[in-house]
Order: sequence, then C-alpha cells, then structure tokens
Amino acid sequence: MQAIARLCHESRIPLVPRGAGTGYTGGAVPSQGGVVLSLARLNRILEIDEGNLLAVVEPHVITGDLQDAVEAVGLFYPPDPASLRRSVIGGNVAECAGGPRAFKYGVTKQYVLGLEAVLPTGECIRTGGKVVKNVVGYDLTHLLVGSEGTLAIITKVILRLIPKPPMQVTMRASFPSVRHAVNAVTLLIRARVIPAALELVDGECLDAVASYLDVRSLAPEGTAAIVLLELDGLAEQVAAESVRVEGACREAGATEFLRAASESERQELWRVRREISPSLKVISGLKINHDVVVPKARVPELFELVERLRRQFRLRIPCFGHVGDGNIHVNIMVTPGDADEIERAHEAAGELFRGTIALEGSISGEHGIGFAKTKYMALELSPETIDVMRRVKAAFDPHGILNPGKMFPE
Amino acid sequence: MQAIARLCHESRIPLVPRGAGTGYTGGAVPSQGGVVLSLARLNRILEIDEGNLLAVVEPHVITGDLQDAVEAVGLFYPPDPASLRRSVIGGNVAECAGGPRAFKYGVTKQYVLGLEAVLPTGECIRTGGKVVKNVVGYDLTHLLVGSEGTLAIITKVILRLIPKPPMQVTMRASFPSVRHAVNAVTLLIRARVIPAALELVDGECLDAVASYLDVRSLAPEGTAAIVLLELDGLAEQVAAESVRVEGACREAGATEFLRAASESERQELWRVRREISPSLKVISGLKINHDVVVPKARVPELFELVERLRRQFRLRIPCFGHVGDGNIHVNIMVTPGDADEIERAHEAAGELFRGTIALEGSISGEHGIGFAKTKYMALELSPETIDVMRRVKAAFDPHGILNPGKMFPE
Repeated sequence: MQAIARLCHESRIPLVPRGAGTGYTGGAVPSQGGVVLSLARLNRILEIDEGNLLAVVEPHVITGDLQDAVEAVGLFYPPDPASLRRSVIGGNVAECAGGPRAFKYGVTKQYVLGLEAVLPTGECIRTGGKVVKNVVGYDLTHLLVGSEGTLAIITKVILRLIPKPPMQVTMRASFPSVRHAVNAVTLLIRARVIPAALELVDGECLDAVASYLDVRSLAPEGTAAIVLLELDGLAEQVAAESVRVEGACREAGATEFLRAASESERQELWRVRREISPSLKVISGLKINHDVVVPKARVPELFELVERLRRQFRLRIPCFGHVGDGNIHVNIMVTPGDADEIERAHEAAGELFRGTIALEGSISGEHGIGFAKTKYMALELSPETIDVMRRVKAAFDPHGILNPGKMFPE
Repeated sequence: MQAIARLCHESRIPLVPRGAGTGYTGGAVPSQGGVVLSLARLNRILEIDEGNLLAVVEPHVITGDLQDAVEAVGLFYPPDPASLRRSVIGGNVAECAGGPRAFKYGVTKQYVLGLEAVLPTGECIRTGGKVVKNVVGYDLTHLLVGSEGTLAIITKVILRLIPKPPMQVTMRASFPSVRHAVNAVTLLIRARVIPAALELVDGECLDAVASYLDVRSLAPEGTAAIVLLELDGLAEQVAAESVRVEGACREAGATEFLRAASESERQELWRVRREISPSLKVISGLKINHDVVVPKARVPELFELVERLRRQFRLRIPCFGHVGDGNIHVNIMVTPGDADEIERAHEAAGELFRGTIALEGSISGEHGIGFAKTKYMALELSPETIDVMRRVKAAFDPHGILNPGKMFPE
C-alpha cells in the first residue's frame, strides 16, 4: 500500500480509498478518476483485549460483526450507524459515524484510541495507542477521524470498548407536537436520565409508515411526533430511570406512553423506525437525507423551518432523528426524472442549510461533506477557517492526490 | 490580539500565550524570550445555556469558578485537574487536562465543542460550535486541544455541560498489594460499575502521609495500596452500585473497606489524597511528577518497574494516580542541590519512560511535553509521525513564532 501511495504521489494520480461505499455524501466515489484502493482484504479483527477494554481491527471489518464479536465476550462497541450491517469500521472512522446511541455513548470519535495510517506520500504513521489518555504531540488520531479519506489511508484501528450493559428497556411516547416532544427531552435531562437512545419520528413519517403497512398501531393517528426511548444499565438503575422517563413524558403532555414488557414488544416498538425507509420509498423514488444538527433546545425551530420549506417548495419532507443530539434527518422526497421537483428540492436544501446555521447548527452531524455538500461548506465555515484546513490538507498531501474533489469547495 | 500576532509573525519574534502558568512541563515559559501574551483579562463567563447544556467562556476563567457557576444552576463540568482552583480553562484546553473524574467522564477534550482562536499569522478562526455532533471539515477543535499553545491562541471556548449528579458516595478499600487493587478494578468493571473516581495511593505515599500527620488512621499500616472510590448518580443507582463495589473489593482481597456515611466522613476519606503533596515535601524539597499511562491491566507491571527503579537508583518514588485510566503519577523525589541524586533521578526518568512504552503506554497522560519532555518524545513517536506533526505546525505557523522550543525535539 505504501508503494501504491508513493507511485500515485510521484505520478500525481488521484488515489481514492474505498471501504464498503455506504456513505451518503459520496466520499468513496472516484469523482476525478484515478486509482481506487479497495480495503476489502484488510478485514480481520486482530485482537479483543478484555482486560484493557479494547479491540484492534483492520479497516474492512463490518461494524455489526465487530459488535457481535465483542458482545460475545460481554463487551460493547456503542456506535451504531443505520448501515452497521454493511458499513465498515474504516469508513465509520473516516466519516465519524454516529447513530441512535450517540446521545448517551458518543460517536465513533469517542471510541478511537489509535490509528495506523498510510500517508499519501507513502509513509506509515501510528497515532495514539492502547491508552485512554495520551497528550504526547498533536492529536492526529482525532484529526484523521472524520477526515473523509482526504488525509491518510487508515490501515489499523485501536478501539475503546465498554462493558455490555446488562439490561435494556424500550419505551414509546406520543406527542401532539414536536415542541411537546422536545420538552419531554428537556424534562428527562433535568431528571438526570440519559437514555441510550432517544429517537424522534415526525407525523409525516408516521403517516407514511401507517399507509405502507395499512395499520395505525405503530403510528397513532393525530400524533405529530413519537419518541422512542431506550434505557440500559444495571437492573436497579433502569427501573429507577424508567419511572422518571414516564413522569417526564406525561408531564410534557404525552398522549400515550408504552413500555415493552418483552423482547417481541421491544422489537414491535422499534419496528416503526425500521419501516420508515421502505415506507418513504413508496411515496417517491428518491430520498435525499440531510443530517442537519442544531442545539437541542432549537429543534422545534428547525421543525418550523421544515414546515415552511414544505409549503414554500411544495415538497414532502418527512423527518426523524436523534433528538437528544439535536441531529435530525430531514428527508426531501423527489421523483427521479421530475426536473422541476428536483430543482425545488435543491433550493429547499440550500434554505435548510442556511436556516440551520442561523439556528447555530451545523449542516452535517453524521454524513460529512463528500462531494455532495462541498458548495455548502462555506456557509458554515469562514474563508480563514477553510484556508487553514487546506494548509493541513497540504501538510499531509502536498500534491492533493488523496480523494480529490471532496470536502473543500472548488 | 490579531495585530500582536501579525507583528510577531512579520518580525519573527517568539510569541508565548500564557494562562495561569500552573502546567507541569513548562508550556507557558518563554524559554526563547520574545513576547509573553497574558490572557488574564479574557476572564468572563459569557454564557451558561441550561437548555442546551453548554457554556461559552473566555480562556482565563478559573476552572473551579466555572464549576461553581454551573453547579449553582444544577449543571456539571466534570474535568477536575488538581490545580482547578488556580488553573484556567484556556490552559486546561491547551494541555487537555484530566483529573480523577476522567475514568467515568473523560478529559477536557470530551467537553470542548468549539473554539475561537487567533492564528500566529493573525487570522481569527472559529472551529466546531454549539452542537454535539459536527463533521463539517477537519476537526480543528480537537487538534487545538492539547496542542500546548503551539498552533493558535485560544480566545473563546464552547464547553459541553452535563446535569449535576444528584448524589455521591465515597468509599475506601485497602489492599495488600497493587496487584490486588488492580484486580478489584477489573472485577468492578466486570460488575458494570463505572465509579466517578478511582484513585490509587501506594504504600510509599501512605507512609509519608502517616509520618507527616503522625496518625495511621488515614493510611493503615502494612497496606501496599488503597483505592478511593466515588460513585455518583441517581440514589437508586448509587445504592445498587455501592453493593457491587464492596463485593468486588472484598473478592479481590481488600483487608479493609470503609464507606462514608456523612459529608465529614467523605472529606476524611479524601483527606489522604490531599495530604500527599505536603507530606512528600517534607521528605525532599523537589517532587518530579511524571504522569505516565499504561493500559489498565498493565498497572501492576508499571509498579514492578517503579520498584526496580527505586532499588537501582536509590530513590524514593511515591506513586498515586487514576488507576482506572492506567494513569499513574510517578513522583521522583530529589533534594535540590544534590547533584548526584538529581543525576540518578534523570536516569530513572529515562528508564521509566522506556519501560512505560514497552508496556504499550504513553509518557504523558495529562501534563503534555512542554520543554521538560521534548527529548523523550521520540521514544514514543516515530520520525515519520513527528515529521507530519511538524508539517501541521508549519501549516498554522509558517515562521515558527508561536511558543517555540515546546513539544518538538530539537
């Protein structure tokens, strides 16, 4: 691999590292041609160290497979992007993948202790290591996490693990408005409860699921938002917390509150979340998923913005997401081939990003910039900030051969 | 401030940002002369946002003052370096300060959401923001955290807060060896308990405290190690966990187990930790505190190494530290003016660092490199890794004016 990098560097040929290719913003797409470097054969779990709560893995280990392997020995790797049965650790690291559990457990970044990586100039570097605290030199580990394959090719990952929580309980609360749902989250935090998952599904998603499945039990009529909550931990703790969860939801005006009493009931509560994607596919052929994020308390304002966009651009925009993090997936639905609708969708996306930044938010919480959002990056970052990022890029990749055309605006 | 940076950049004059100057490795010392930029007047808490669980502060806010301010409204800023009543947030960010609570809550890095900083070339940049997830561009925020004032001058910090845990309980367990103590920690983790603090104090520290205070109650005779444990959280959770803590300690062979029943008992258990520094000052005039870190399960091997160094170099080396993180403060005691002892202390430090790295550890978990450890940096990092760090430094500071002589070996 070092030889390939050196050759591409010397010959100034684009070099695009590729994991499972499941990203939403096109980070693994060789948009300027060149060499695509598949990491598919670097697919081994090298070490699971129970004593030190860590794993050493190659980049092409499927995230869900790693989770299964560590859970088999009583450990836990929390990051859970929706793609976890297809995406790989290297891609999760390159994009800093999140998922529902991020509210309690944090995103991929919080679990990467160290990396081995090949620079576009051919050198192999090692960053961080097997310790949870390390302040020797610059934190290159966390500079590489989320760098979208533009700084180095990740060849080994040291991941922090935690003990697997002994039990889980799942609940669902229905609310007459998104604002009521967000109030419930605020009350929960005030009650010192940090759920392992806190997923909001809006009325437009619920209607789609109900119509797709032809059943309203998953998505009660007249509900503007449901919140799926999962607690995990010691039995005594979960029991104490679940009382507080119900109290907070009812105080915030929940019209219905359900608690799963069995694994099958738990799966049934989660089913609405899993059925969103197939249900939306029936509405329109193409779902453009924008993973914007705002400070949590401003989520109701974000939904007011989306409501305005729906009317102004005559679009269906079902939303769901990680409400505890303020990270909402705003899905603009379009019919492929409908040029007018696609144009309106692009205009709506621009408005969405500008509005998100006005709410002190960010245009991407999980999916990155890739090539899909390059033209919006300058909405969020100043020219001076982008310039210093370009100089960092040049410090790693003086000829700009590694994954060109990504992240930076032209 | 931007004008000062530009002037120094153009005139190639060293520029050294200075917070409270409490660091252990000399990061704030203008070792090559030049301009010292005091941040003392940037000392305001600008915002405490209860709804979004964040604070915006200037760099010269004393860490303990921020903690008091946020706790007054029911919130919590966990990082707790021993210097917290004197050190400031800007310095904590520049060094990535830790503290006892890091095992459960993480270090400073985990609480910095965004920064405003002035580059040595004069531009002002903003990184991150008010959201907990953000993958737009490179993570410059976490590159600047722990960069020891060599990349930029931090002028504003956005910090993540959490709700203040409603209750705490403190315990102390005594063990016949460090290995027994580490086994207790392993059993605790297996029992799914994550204490808020997990502090180990070795026999040599205990003897020093006992002789200083002339009382053995804090430091029972014949004890090779005590562990101070603190649990926090909801009352039901703390009650359930404390039963498991006692079980794990007794199973690991604790010879004594105490639980504080009141605030005064709690303060009495913590007193041994606070009395270590004054007690050691009586032994010798100078304590050289090396904050090495190893994978947790290798802490007993680290103590075997220290025992060997004590004999080989005829030195007193009391140790204490954050055992859950594998982060041990190895204090080499010397008499100022005793040239032979100082020479032996330097040799022992070199051996300590080499041995730590052989145990897959790091030479600094909390204090950084500054100028005190520059010659040891190459023990841990390869020339290729240091080279890329130098190129990152040049991307921010092409003339090398900002805090020169720090971090990098000559």
